Amino acid sequence: MDKIKRNERMAALTKWLTESPNRIFTLSHFCEQFGSAKSTLSEDIDILRRTFETFGLGKLETVTGAAGGVRYRPSISPEDTVAFLSGLAGELSTPSRFLPGGFLYLGDILSMHDIVTKMGTIIAEQFYDAEPDFVLTMETKGIPVALMASHALGVPLVIARHSSKVYEGSAVHINYVSGTDKHIDTMSLSRRAVKPGQKALIVDDFVKAGGTAKGMCDLMTEFEVEVVGTAFVVATENPVKKCISGEKALLTMNVDADDPGTLSLRPSDWVMEMVDK
Amino acid sequence: MDKIKRNERMAALTKWLTESPNRIFTLSHFCEQFGSAKSTLSEDIDILRRTFETFGLGKLETVTGAAGGVRYRPSISPEDTVAFLSGLAGELSTPSRFLPGGFLYLGDILSMHDIVTKMGTIIAEQFYDAEPDFVLTMETKGIPVALMASHALGVPLVIARHSSKVYEGSAVHINYVSGTDKHIDTMSLSRRAVKPGQKALIVDDFVKAGGTAKGMCDLMTEFEVEVVGTAFVVATENPVKKCISGEKALLTMNVDADDPGTLSLRPSDWVMEMVDK
Repeated sequence: MDKIKRNERMAALTKWLTESPNRIFTLSHFCEQFGSAKSTLSEDIDILRRTFETFGLGKLETVTGAAGGVRYRPSISPEDTVAFLSGLAGELSTPSRFLPGGFLYLGDILSMHDIVTKMGTIIAEQFYDAEPDFVLTMETKGIPVALMASHALGVPLVIARHSSKVYEGSAVHINYVSGTDKHIDTMSLSRRAVKPGQKALIVDDFVKAGGTAKGMCDLMTEFEVEVVGTAFVVATENPVKKCISGEKALLTMNVDADDPGTLSLRPSDWVMEMVDK
Repeated sequence: MDKIKRNERMAALTKWLTESPNRIFTLSHFCEQFGSAKSTLSEDIDILRRTFETFGLGKLETVTGAAGGVRYRPSISPEDTVAFLSGLAGELSTPSRFLPGGFLYLGDILSMHDIVTKMGTIIAEQFYDAEPDFVLTMETKGIPVALMASHALGVPLVIARHSSKVYEGSAVHINYVSGTDKHIDTMSLSRRAVKPGQKALIVDDFVKAGGTAKGMCDLMTEFEVEVVGTAFVVATENPVKKCISGEKALLTMNVDADDPGTLSLRPSDWVMEMVDK
Protein backbone atom coordinates (compact mmCIF):
# COMPACT_ATOMS: atom_id res chain seq x y z
CA MET A 1 0.00 0.00 0.00
CA ASP A 2 1.23 3.53 -0.74
CA LYS A 3 2.02 5.83 2.14
CA ILE A 4 -1.24 6.99 3.63
CA LYS A 5 -1.88 10.73 3.66
CA ARG A 6 -3.27 12.68 6.58
CA ASN A 7 -6.45 13.39 4.57
CA GLU A 8 -7.07 9.69 4.30
CA ARG A 9 -6.20 8.99 7.92
CA MET A 10 -8.68 11.68 9.02
CA ALA A 11 -11.51 9.96 7.18
CA ALA A 12 -10.69 6.45 8.39
CA LEU A 13 -10.12 7.57 12.00
CA THR A 14 -13.46 9.39 12.01
CA LYS A 15 -15.27 6.32 10.74
CA TRP A 16 -13.65 3.91 13.19
CA LEU A 17 -13.93 6.12 16.25
CA THR A 18 -17.53 7.23 15.69
CA GLU A 19 -18.84 3.75 14.95
CA SER A 20 -17.57 2.44 18.31
CA PRO A 21 -18.45 5.09 20.89
CA ASN A 22 -16.93 5.04 24.37
CA ARG A 23 -14.37 2.43 23.36
CA ILE A 24 -10.74 3.22 24.08
CA PHE A 25 -8.45 2.78 21.08
CA THR A 26 -4.70 2.81 21.69
CA LEU A 27 -2.54 4.97 19.46
CA SER A 28 -0.50 1.84 18.67
CA HIS A 29 -3.63 0.25 17.20
CA PHE A 30 -3.94 3.09 14.68
CA CYS A 31 -0.19 3.21 14.06
CA GLU A 32 -0.38 -0.42 12.93
CA GLN A 33 -3.35 0.26 10.67
CA PHE A 34 -1.58 3.10 8.90
CA GLY A 35 2.09 2.21 9.31
CA SER A 36 2.59 5.69 10.79
CA ALA A 37 4.65 6.94 13.72
CA LYS A 38 3.03 7.62 17.08
CA SER A 39 3.91 11.32 16.91
CA THR A 40 2.10 11.58 13.57
CA LEU A 41 -1.00 9.84 14.94
CA SER A 42 -0.91 12.05 17.99
CA GLU A 43 -1.06 15.11 15.73
CA ASP A 44 -3.88 13.50 13.73
CA ILE A 45 -5.91 13.05 16.90
CA ASP A 46 -5.32 16.68 17.93
CA ILE A 47 -6.61 17.92 14.58
CA LEU A 48 -9.55 15.54 14.80
CA ARG A 49 -10.42 16.71 18.31
CA ARG A 50 -10.52 20.33 17.21
CA THR A 51 -12.52 19.49 14.09
CA PHE A 52 -15.10 17.56 16.11
CA GLU A 53 -15.41 20.56 18.42
CA THR A 54 -15.71 23.06 15.58
CA PHE A 55 -18.49 21.14 13.84
CA GLY A 56 -20.24 19.78 16.95
CA LEU A 57 -19.58 16.17 15.95
CA GLY A 58 -19.07 14.87 19.49
CA LYS A 59 -16.17 14.63 21.90
CA LEU A 60 -12.80 13.02 21.33
CA GLU A 61 -11.11 12.36 24.65
CA THR A 62 -7.62 11.24 25.54
CA VAL A 63 -7.51 8.73 28.36
CA THR A 64 -4.20 8.47 30.18
CA GLY A 65 -2.76 5.52 32.06
CA ALA A 66 -1.86 1.93 31.25
CA ALA A 67 -5.17 1.25 29.50
CA GLY A 68 -5.10 4.69 27.91
CA GLY A 69 -5.76 5.87 24.40
CA VAL A 70 -8.42 7.87 22.64
CA ARG A 71 -12.17 7.47 22.80
CA TYR A 72 -15.13 9.05 21.06
CA ARG A 73 -18.29 10.08 22.86
CA PRO A 74 -21.23 11.36 20.88
CA SER A 75 -22.50 14.65 22.19
CA ILE A 76 -25.24 17.10 21.37
CA SER A 77 -24.79 20.72 22.40
CA PRO A 78 -27.21 22.16 25.00
CA GLU A 79 -28.70 24.46 22.36
CA ASP A 80 -29.25 21.61 19.90
CA THR A 81 -30.68 19.42 22.67
CA VAL A 82 -33.28 22.04 23.56
CA ALA A 83 -34.05 22.80 19.91
CA PHE A 84 -34.49 19.08 19.12
CA LEU A 85 -36.67 18.33 22.16
CA SER A 86 -38.72 21.52 21.80
CA GLY A 87 -39.41 20.65 18.17
CA LEU A 88 -40.39 17.13 19.13
CA ALA A 89 -42.58 18.39 21.99
CA GLY A 90 -44.39 20.66 19.56
CA GLU A 91 -44.90 17.88 17.06
CA LEU A 92 -46.24 15.53 19.73
CA SER A 93 -48.57 18.10 21.29
CA THR A 94 -51.39 17.41 18.85
CA PRO A 95 -54.77 16.12 20.05
CA SER A 96 -54.74 13.32 17.42
CA ARG A 97 -51.81 11.75 19.29
CA PHE A 98 -53.85 11.45 22.45
CA LEU A 99 -54.90 7.88 23.14
CA PRO A 100 -57.57 6.60 25.54
CA GLY A 101 -56.35 6.26 29.12
CA GLY A 102 -54.01 9.25 28.97
CA PHE A 103 -51.43 7.60 26.70
CA LEU A 104 -49.59 9.07 23.73
CA TYR A 105 -49.03 7.74 20.22
CA LEU A 106 -45.26 7.57 19.90
CA GLY A 107 -44.83 4.49 17.69
CA ASP A 108 -43.76 6.38 14.56
CA ILE A 109 -41.25 8.60 16.37
CA LEU A 110 -39.69 5.73 18.33
CA SER A 111 -38.71 3.71 15.28
CA MET A 112 -36.97 6.53 13.39
CA HIS A 113 -33.24 5.96 13.54
CA ASP A 114 -32.15 9.60 13.52
CA ILE A 115 -34.57 10.53 16.30
CA VAL A 116 -33.76 7.59 18.59
CA THR A 117 -30.05 8.17 17.98
CA LYS A 118 -30.36 11.72 19.31
CA MET A 119 -32.49 10.60 22.25
CA GLY A 120 -30.05 7.79 23.08
CA THR A 121 -27.12 10.22 22.90
CA ILE A 122 -28.74 12.79 25.20
CA ILE A 123 -29.47 10.04 27.74
CA ALA A 124 -26.03 8.43 27.44
CA GLU A 125 -24.22 11.73 28.00
CA GLN A 126 -25.73 11.93 31.48
CA PHE A 127 -24.66 8.42 32.47
CA TYR A 128 -21.07 8.04 31.26
CA ASP A 129 -19.81 8.74 34.78
CA ALA A 130 -22.13 6.11 36.30
CA GLU A 131 -20.41 3.49 34.10
CA PRO A 132 -23.35 1.10 33.58
CA ASP A 133 -22.42 -2.40 32.36
CA PHE A 134 -25.57 -2.67 30.28
CA VAL A 135 -28.80 -0.90 29.38
CA LEU A 136 -32.04 -2.63 30.39
CA THR A 137 -35.36 -2.05 28.68
CA MET A 138 -38.76 -3.71 28.68
CA GLU A 139 -40.14 -4.86 25.34
CA THR A 140 -41.26 -3.37 22.92
CA LYS A 141 -41.41 0.31 22.14
CA GLY A 142 -38.38 1.35 24.14
CA ILE A 143 -36.03 -1.03 22.33
CA PRO A 144 -34.75 1.31 19.60
CA VAL A 145 -33.96 4.23 21.92
CA ALA A 146 -32.45 1.85 24.51
CA LEU A 147 -30.33 0.26 21.77
CA MET A 148 -28.96 3.62 20.70
CA ALA A 149 -28.27 4.65 24.33
CA SER A 150 -26.42 1.35 24.82
CA HIS A 151 -24.48 2.01 21.61
CA ALA A 152 -23.43 5.49 22.75
CA LEU A 153 -22.35 4.03 26.10
CA GLY A 154 -20.53 1.16 24.38
CA VAL A 155 -22.36 -1.49 26.43
CA PRO A 156 -24.83 -4.29 25.58
CA LEU A 157 -28.59 -3.93 25.57
CA VAL A 158 -30.65 -6.35 27.67
CA ILE A 159 -34.36 -6.78 27.02
CA ALA A 160 -36.87 -7.92 29.65
CA ARG A 161 -40.05 -9.54 28.36
CA HIS A 162 -43.68 -9.68 29.39
CA SER A 163 -43.59 -13.42 29.51
CA SER A 164 -40.87 -15.94 29.05
CA LYS A 165 -40.79 -17.26 25.53
CA VAL A 166 -39.65 -20.77 24.84
CA TYR A 167 -36.61 -19.50 22.97
CA GLU A 168 -35.23 -17.57 25.93
CA GLY A 169 -34.12 -20.61 27.90
CA SER A 170 -34.23 -20.64 31.69
CA ALA A 171 -35.52 -17.31 33.02
CA VAL A 172 -36.27 -15.37 36.20
CA HIS A 173 -39.88 -14.19 36.51
CA ILE A 174 -41.31 -11.54 38.77
CA ASN A 175 -44.82 -10.23 39.20
CA TYR A 176 -45.32 -6.52 39.31
CA VAL A 177 -48.28 -4.24 39.80
CA SER A 178 -49.04 -1.94 36.92
CA GLY A 179 -48.97 1.56 38.40
CA THR A 180 -51.85 2.88 36.32
CA ASP A 181 -54.65 0.34 36.63
CA LYS A 182 -53.21 -1.85 39.38
CA HIS A 183 -53.44 -5.13 37.48
CA ILE A 184 -50.77 -7.73 38.07
CA ASP A 185 -48.37 -8.48 35.25
CA THR A 186 -45.35 -10.71 34.75
CA MET A 187 -41.87 -9.71 33.63
CA SER A 188 -39.09 -12.12 32.83
CA LEU A 189 -35.43 -12.11 31.93
CA SER A 190 -33.18 -14.88 30.73
CA ARG A 191 -30.81 -16.17 33.41
CA ARG A 192 -27.93 -15.84 30.98
CA ALA A 193 -28.57 -12.17 30.29
CA VAL A 194 -26.74 -10.48 33.18
CA LYS A 195 -24.28 -11.24 36.00
CA PRO A 196 -24.48 -10.42 39.73
CA GLY A 197 -22.53 -7.30 40.67
CA GLN A 198 -23.12 -5.52 37.36
CA LYS A 199 -24.62 -2.04 37.04
CA ALA A 200 -27.73 -1.33 34.96
CA LEU A 201 -29.10 1.79 33.33
CA ILE A 202 -32.86 1.44 32.73
CA VAL A 203 -34.13 3.12 29.55
CA ASP A 204 -37.74 3.01 28.40
CA ASP A 205 -40.19 4.97 26.29
CA PHE A 206 -42.90 6.12 28.67
CA VAL A 207 -43.44 6.41 32.41
CA LYS A 208 -46.77 7.28 33.97
CA ALA A 209 -47.21 5.79 37.44
CA GLY A 210 -43.94 3.86 37.18
CA GLY A 211 -45.16 0.33 37.91
CA THR A 212 -43.22 -1.22 35.03
CA ALA A 213 -40.10 0.75 35.95
CA LYS A 214 -40.37 -0.44 39.55
CA GLY A 215 -40.77 -3.99 38.20
CA MET A 216 -37.51 -3.61 36.26
CA CYS A 217 -35.75 -2.35 39.41
CA ASP A 218 -37.11 -5.32 41.40
CA LEU A 219 -35.98 -7.66 38.63
CA MET A 220 -32.46 -6.22 38.88
CA THR A 221 -32.52 -6.81 42.65
CA GLU A 222 -33.29 -10.48 41.93
CA PHE A 223 -30.17 -10.57 39.76
CA GLU A 224 -28.11 -8.67 42.38
CA VAL A 225 -27.57 -5.86 39.91
CA GLU A 226 -27.40 -2.20 40.94
CA VAL A 227 -29.59 0.27 39.03
CA VAL A 228 -27.54 3.43 38.40
CA GLY A 229 -30.33 5.35 36.71
CA THR A 230 -33.75 5.28 35.05
CA ALA A 231 -34.34 7.36 31.92
CA PHE A 232 -37.45 7.72 29.76
CA VAL A 233 -38.44 9.46 26.58
CA VAL A 234 -41.70 10.80 28.06
CA ALA A 235 -42.81 11.12 31.69
CA THR A 236 -46.31 12.25 32.57
CA GLU A 237 -46.54 15.17 34.97
CA ASN A 238 -49.20 13.26 36.93
CA PRO A 239 -49.14 11.32 39.12
CA VAL A 240 -46.30 13.39 40.59
CA LYS A 241 -45.58 10.62 43.06
CA LYS A 242 -44.54 7.60 40.99
CA CYS A 243 -43.64 4.06 42.09
CA ILE A 244 -39.98 4.90 41.54
CA SER A 245 -38.02 8.00 42.41
CA GLY A 246 -35.19 9.87 40.73
CA GLU A 247 -36.43 9.03 37.24
CA LYS A 248 -35.20 11.19 34.38
CA ALA A 249 -37.17 11.96 31.22
CA LEU A 250 -36.51 13.89 28.04
CA LEU A 251 -40.06 15.22 27.75
CA THR A 252 -42.77 15.97 30.30
CA MET A 253 -46.37 15.42 29.25
CA ASN A 254 -49.42 17.12 30.61
CA VAL A 255 -53.01 16.28 29.74
CA ASP A 256 -56.45 16.39 31.22
CA ALA A 257 -57.52 12.77 30.57
CA ASP A 258 -61.02 13.88 29.55
CA ASP A 259 -59.87 16.50 27.07
CA PRO A 260 -57.33 15.58 24.36
CA GLY A 261 -57.25 19.26 23.43
CA THR A 262 -55.23 19.94 26.57
CA LEU A 263 -52.37 17.63 25.52
CA SER A 264 -49.03 19.37 25.80
CA LEU A 265 -45.40 18.28 26.05
CA ARG A 266 -42.26 20.22 26.88
CA PRO A 267 -38.56 19.47 27.43
CA SER A 268 -38.32 18.20 31.02
CA ASP A 269 -36.86 20.13 33.95
CA TRP A 270 -33.99 17.62 33.92
CA VAL A 271 -33.12 18.64 30.36
CA MET A 272 -33.46 22.33 31.10
CA GLU A 273 -31.14 21.93 34.11
CA MET A 274 -28.49 20.19 31.96
CA VAL A 275 -28.61 23.12 29.62
CA ASP A 276 -28.32 25.73 32.37
CA LYS A 277 -25.11 24.15 33.61
CA MET B 1 -14.56 30.99 11.37
CA ASP B 2 -11.07 30.48 9.94
CA LYS B 3 -10.73 28.88 6.55
CA ILE B 4 -11.41 25.18 6.89
CA LYS B 5 -8.63 22.85 5.85
CA ARG B 6 -9.07 19.69 3.81
CA ASN B 7 -8.07 17.57 6.84
CA GLU B 8 -10.98 19.02 8.76
CA ARG B 9 -13.42 18.71 5.88
CA MET B 10 -12.49 15.03 5.50
CA ALA B 11 -13.42 14.32 9.13
CA ALA B 12 -16.69 16.26 9.05
CA LEU B 13 -17.75 14.83 5.66
CA THR B 14 -17.08 11.30 6.90
CA LYS B 15 -19.17 11.86 10.02
CA TRP B 16 -22.12 13.41 8.19
CA LEU B 17 -22.20 10.97 5.29
CA THR B 18 -21.80 7.81 7.36
CA GLU B 19 -24.41 8.75 9.94
CA SER B 20 -27.10 9.17 7.25
CA PRO B 21 -26.68 6.22 4.89
CA ASN B 22 -28.38 6.15 1.48
CA ARG B 23 -29.29 9.83 1.72
CA ILE B 24 -28.27 12.02 -1.19
CA PHE B 25 -26.38 15.16 -0.15
CA THR B 26 -25.87 17.87 -2.76
CA LEU B 27 -22.40 19.32 -3.17
CA SER B 28 -23.94 22.76 -2.60
CA HIS B 29 -25.04 21.63 0.85
CA PHE B 30 -21.44 20.91 1.83
CA CYS B 31 -20.14 24.04 0.09
CA GLU B 32 -22.39 26.09 2.35
CA GLN B 33 -21.23 24.25 5.46
CA PHE B 34 -17.57 24.90 4.69
CA GLY B 35 -17.68 28.07 2.62
CA SER B 36 -15.70 26.20 -0.05
CA ALA B 37 -15.93 26.13 -3.84
CA LYS B 38 -17.68 23.28 -5.62
CA SER B 39 -14.48 22.20 -7.36
CA THR B 40 -12.77 21.87 -3.98
CA LEU B 41 -15.62 19.80 -2.57
CA SER B 42 -15.60 17.66 -5.66
CA GLU B 43 -11.93 16.85 -5.05
CA ASP B 44 -12.70 16.16 -1.37
CA ILE B 45 -15.32 13.63 -2.36
CA ASP B 46 -12.92 11.92 -4.79
CA ILE B 47 -10.31 11.53 -2.06
CA LEU B 48 -12.97 10.31 0.35
CA ARG B 49 -14.26 7.74 -2.14
CA ARG B 50 -10.79 6.29 -2.63
CA THR B 51 -10.11 6.28 1.12
CA PHE B 52 -13.37 4.45 1.84
CA GLU B 53 -12.42 1.89 -0.78
CA THR B 54 -8.88 1.45 0.55
CA PHE B 55 -10.02 0.86 4.12
CA GLY B 56 -13.26 -0.99 3.38
CA LEU B 57 -15.38 1.68 5.05
CA GLY B 58 -18.32 1.43 2.66
CA LYS B 59 -19.26 2.93 -0.69
CA LEU B 60 -19.43 6.58 -1.62
CA GLU B 61 -21.49 7.00 -4.78
CA THR B 62 -22.10 9.97 -7.01
CA VAL B 63 -25.68 10.27 -8.19
CA THR B 64 -26.19 12.30 -11.33
CA GLY B 65 -29.26 14.20 -12.45
CA ALA B 66 -31.43 16.98 -11.04
CA ALA B 67 -31.69 15.37 -7.61
CA GLY B 68 -28.05 14.33 -7.76
CA GLY B 69 -25.26 14.51 -5.26
CA VAL B 70 -23.27 12.09 -3.19
CA ARG B 71 -24.51 9.26 -1.00
CA TYR B 72 -22.93 6.80 1.39
CA ARG B 73 -23.87 3.16 1.50
CA PRO B 74 -22.38 0.93 4.19
CA SER B 75 -20.81 -2.17 2.72
CA ILE B 76 -19.04 -5.25 3.98
CA SER B 77 -16.68 -7.05 1.62
CA PRO B 78 -17.58 -10.61 0.58
CA GLU B 79 -14.57 -11.96 2.53
CA ASP B 80 -15.54 -10.08 5.69
CA THR B 81 -19.17 -11.15 5.29
CA VAL B 82 -18.21 -14.82 5.17
CA ALA B 83 -15.67 -14.44 7.99
CA PHE B 84 -18.25 -12.66 10.20
CA LEU B 85 -21.06 -15.14 9.51
CA SER B 86 -18.81 -18.19 9.77
CA GLY B 87 -17.57 -16.97 13.14
CA LEU B 88 -21.12 -16.36 14.30
CA ALA B 89 -22.26 -19.75 13.00
CA GLY B 90 -19.48 -21.41 14.98
CA GLU B 91 -20.36 -19.51 18.14
CA LEU B 92 -24.04 -20.40 17.82
CA SER B 93 -23.43 -24.07 17.06
CA THR B 94 -23.19 -25.05 20.71
CA PRO B 95 -25.66 -27.51 22.25
CA SER B 96 -26.34 -25.15 25.19
CA ARG B 97 -28.00 -22.75 22.73
CA PHE B 98 -30.50 -25.38 21.70
CA LEU B 99 -33.95 -24.71 23.13
CA PRO B 100 -36.92 -27.08 23.37
CA GLY B 101 -38.97 -27.25 20.18
CA GLY B 102 -36.01 -26.85 17.87
CA PHE B 103 -35.43 -23.15 18.63
CA LEU B 104 -32.16 -21.33 19.19
CA TYR B 105 -31.08 -18.93 21.95
CA LEU B 106 -30.19 -15.75 20.07
CA GLY B 107 -31.23 -13.08 22.58
CA ASP B 108 -27.71 -12.01 23.56
CA ILE B 109 -26.43 -11.80 19.97
CA LEU B 110 -29.46 -9.88 18.71
CA SER B 111 -29.09 -6.98 21.12
CA MET B 112 -25.40 -6.29 20.48
CA HIS B 113 -25.10 -3.14 18.42
CA ASP B 114 -21.98 -4.07 16.45
CA ILE B 115 -23.38 -7.47 15.48
CA VAL B 116 -26.83 -6.23 14.43
CA THR B 117 -25.19 -3.36 12.52
CA LYS B 118 -23.23 -5.85 10.41
CA MET B 119 -26.28 -8.05 9.91
CA GLY B 120 -28.42 -5.06 8.95
CA THR B 121 -25.77 -3.89 6.49
CA ILE B 122 -25.42 -7.28 4.79
CA ILE B 123 -29.21 -7.45 4.37
CA ALA B 124 -29.54 -3.82 3.21
CA GLU B 125 -26.85 -4.24 0.54
CA GLN B 126 -29.02 -6.81 -1.20
CA PHE B 127 -32.11 -4.61 -1.25
CA TYR B 128 -30.92 -1.14 -2.29
CA ASP B 129 -32.11 -1.79 -5.83
CA ALA B 130 -35.57 -2.88 -4.66
CA GLU B 131 -35.98 0.58 -3.05
CA PRO B 132 -38.22 -0.37 -0.10
CA ASP B 133 -40.06 2.56 1.55
CA PHE B 134 -39.79 0.96 4.97
CA VAL B 135 -38.61 -2.12 6.83
CA LEU B 136 -41.27 -4.20 8.59
CA THR B 137 -40.57 -6.47 11.54
CA MET B 138 -42.63 -8.32 14.12
CA GLU B 139 -41.94 -7.60 17.77
CA THR B 140 -39.62 -8.32 19.62
CA LYS B 141 -36.31 -9.99 18.93
CA GLY B 142 -35.96 -8.85 15.33
CA ILE B 143 -36.28 -5.16 16.19
CA PRO B 144 -32.57 -4.28 16.58
CA VAL B 145 -31.44 -5.95 13.34
CA ALA B 146 -34.45 -4.55 11.47
CA LEU B 147 -33.67 -1.08 12.85
CA MET B 148 -30.10 -1.28 11.59
CA ALA B 149 -31.22 -2.57 8.17
CA SER B 150 -33.68 0.33 7.96
CA HIS B 151 -30.88 2.73 8.95
CA ALA B 152 -28.57 1.41 6.24
CA LEU B 153 -31.40 1.73 3.70
CA GLY B 154 -32.26 5.21 4.98
CA VAL B 155 -35.94 4.33 5.51
CA PRO B 156 -38.21 4.08 8.59
CA LEU B 157 -38.76 0.93 10.62
CA VAL B 158 -42.33 -0.25 11.16
CA ILE B 159 -43.12 -2.73 13.94
CA ALA B 160 -46.09 -5.12 13.88
CA ARG B 161 -47.34 -6.35 17.24
CA HIS B 162 -48.84 -9.52 18.63
CA SER B 163 -51.84 -7.63 19.89
CA SER B 164 -52.96 -4.07 19.57
CA LYS B 165 -51.96 -2.07 22.60
CA VAL B 166 -54.10 0.83 23.72
CA TYR B 167 -51.33 3.27 22.89
CA GLU B 168 -51.19 2.31 19.22
CA GLY B 169 -54.46 3.95 18.29
CA SER B 170 -56.68 2.48 15.58
CA ALA B 171 -55.11 -0.67 14.13
CA VAL B 172 -55.59 -3.39 11.51
CA HIS B 173 -55.64 -6.93 12.92
CA ILE B 174 -55.17 -10.18 11.11
CA ASN B 175 -55.17 -13.75 12.33
CA TYR B 176 -52.42 -16.04 11.15
CA VAL B 177 -51.57 -19.66 11.66
CA SER B 178 -48.27 -20.32 13.34
CA GLY B 179 -46.38 -22.56 10.94
CA THR B 180 -44.77 -24.71 13.62
CA ASP B 181 -47.56 -25.77 15.94
CA LYS B 182 -50.55 -24.57 13.91
CA HIS B 183 -52.09 -22.44 16.63
CA ILE B 184 -53.87 -19.26 15.65
CA ASP B 185 -52.31 -15.95 16.60
CA THR B 186 -53.11 -12.29 16.06
CA MET B 187 -50.90 -9.65 14.50
CA SER B 188 -51.72 -5.97 14.39
CA LEU B 189 -50.37 -2.77 12.94
CA SER B 190 -51.36 0.82 13.55
CA ARG B 191 -53.40 2.34 10.72
CA ARG B 192 -51.10 5.35 10.69
CA ALA B 193 -47.95 3.27 10.22
CA VAL B 194 -47.87 2.83 6.43
CA LYS B 195 -49.53 4.09 3.25
CA PRO B 196 -51.09 2.15 0.33
CA GLY B 197 -48.73 1.81 -2.63
CA GLN B 198 -45.55 1.68 -0.53
CA LYS B 199 -42.96 -1.08 -0.73
CA ALA B 200 -41.91 -3.13 2.31
CA LEU B 201 -38.83 -5.16 3.13
CA ILE B 202 -39.60 -7.71 5.86
CA VAL B 203 -36.73 -8.37 8.29
CA ASP B 204 -36.96 -10.73 11.26
CA ASP B 205 -34.76 -12.86 13.47
CA PHE B 206 -35.83 -16.43 12.86
CA VAL B 207 -37.87 -18.38 10.33
CA LYS B 208 -38.82 -22.00 10.78
CA ALA B 209 -42.08 -22.90 9.07
CA GLY B 210 -42.72 -19.28 8.08
CA GLY B 211 -46.19 -18.75 9.57
CA THR B 212 -45.32 -15.41 11.12
CA ALA B 213 -43.61 -14.26 7.93
CA LYS B 214 -46.66 -15.21 5.90
CA GLY B 215 -48.77 -13.29 8.44
CA MET B 216 -46.65 -10.20 7.83
CA CYS B 217 -47.06 -10.60 4.05
CA ASP B 218 -50.85 -10.93 4.49
CA LEU B 219 -50.85 -7.86 6.72
CA MET B 220 -49.07 -5.89 3.99
CA THR B 221 -51.71 -7.04 1.50
CA GLU B 222 -54.36 -5.56 3.81
CA PHE B 223 -52.49 -2.26 3.65
CA GLU B 224 -52.05 -2.54 -0.15
CA VAL B 225 -48.29 -2.60 0.29
CA GLU B 226 -45.96 -4.64 -1.92
CA VAL B 227 -43.41 -6.89 -0.19
CA VAL B 228 -40.11 -6.60 -2.07
CA GLY B 229 -38.24 -9.13 0.05
CA THR B 230 -38.11 -11.17 3.24
CA ALA B 231 -34.80 -11.51 5.10
CA PHE B 232 -33.97 -13.32 8.33
CA VAL B 233 -30.99 -13.80 10.58
CA VAL B 234 -31.52 -17.56 10.87
CA ALA B 235 -33.60 -19.94 8.75
CA THR B 236 -34.00 -23.57 9.69
CA GLU B 237 -33.12 -26.08 7.00
CA ASN B 238 -36.35 -27.95 7.80
CA PRO B 239 -39.12 -27.77 6.89
CA VAL B 240 -37.71 -27.10 3.42
CA LYS B 241 -41.16 -26.07 2.23
CA LYS B 242 -42.11 -23.01 4.27
CA CYS B 243 -45.33 -20.95 4.27
CA ILE B 244 -43.52 -18.27 2.25
CA SER B 245 -41.14 -18.57 -0.66
CA GLY B 246 -38.07 -16.67 -1.76
CA GLU B 247 -37.01 -15.93 1.81
CA LYS B 248 -33.38 -14.97 2.39
CA ALA B 249 -31.41 -15.74 5.54
CA LEU B 250 -27.90 -15.00 6.76
CA LEU B 251 -27.50 -18.34 8.52
CA THR B 252 -28.96 -21.79 7.94
CA MET B 253 -29.61 -23.97 10.98
CA ASN B 254 -29.74 -27.71 11.11
CA VAL B 255 -30.69 -29.80 14.11
CA ASP B 256 -32.23 -33.12 14.98
CA ALA B 257 -34.95 -31.92 17.38
CA ASP B 258 -34.28 -34.86 19.72
CA ASP B 259 -30.53 -34.33 19.90
CA PRO B 260 -29.12 -30.87 20.78
CA GLY B 261 -25.67 -32.27 20.05
CA THR B 262 -26.48 -32.18 16.34
CA LEU B 263 -27.08 -28.38 16.33
CA SER B 264 -25.11 -26.72 13.57
CA LEU B 265 -25.30 -23.43 11.71
CA ARG B 266 -23.56 -22.20 8.58
CA PRO B 267 -23.63 -19.15 6.33
CA SER B 268 -26.65 -19.64 4.04
CA ASP B 269 -26.48 -20.53 0.36
CA TRP B 270 -27.79 -17.02 -0.34
CA VAL B 271 -24.76 -15.52 1.37
CA MET B 272 -22.35 -17.89 -0.35
CA GLU B 273 -23.88 -16.97 -3.73
CA MET B 274 -23.41 -13.23 -3.04
CA VAL B 275 -19.81 -13.91 -2.33
CA ASP B 276 -19.25 -15.98 -5.45
CA LYS B 277 -20.47 -13.12 -7.62
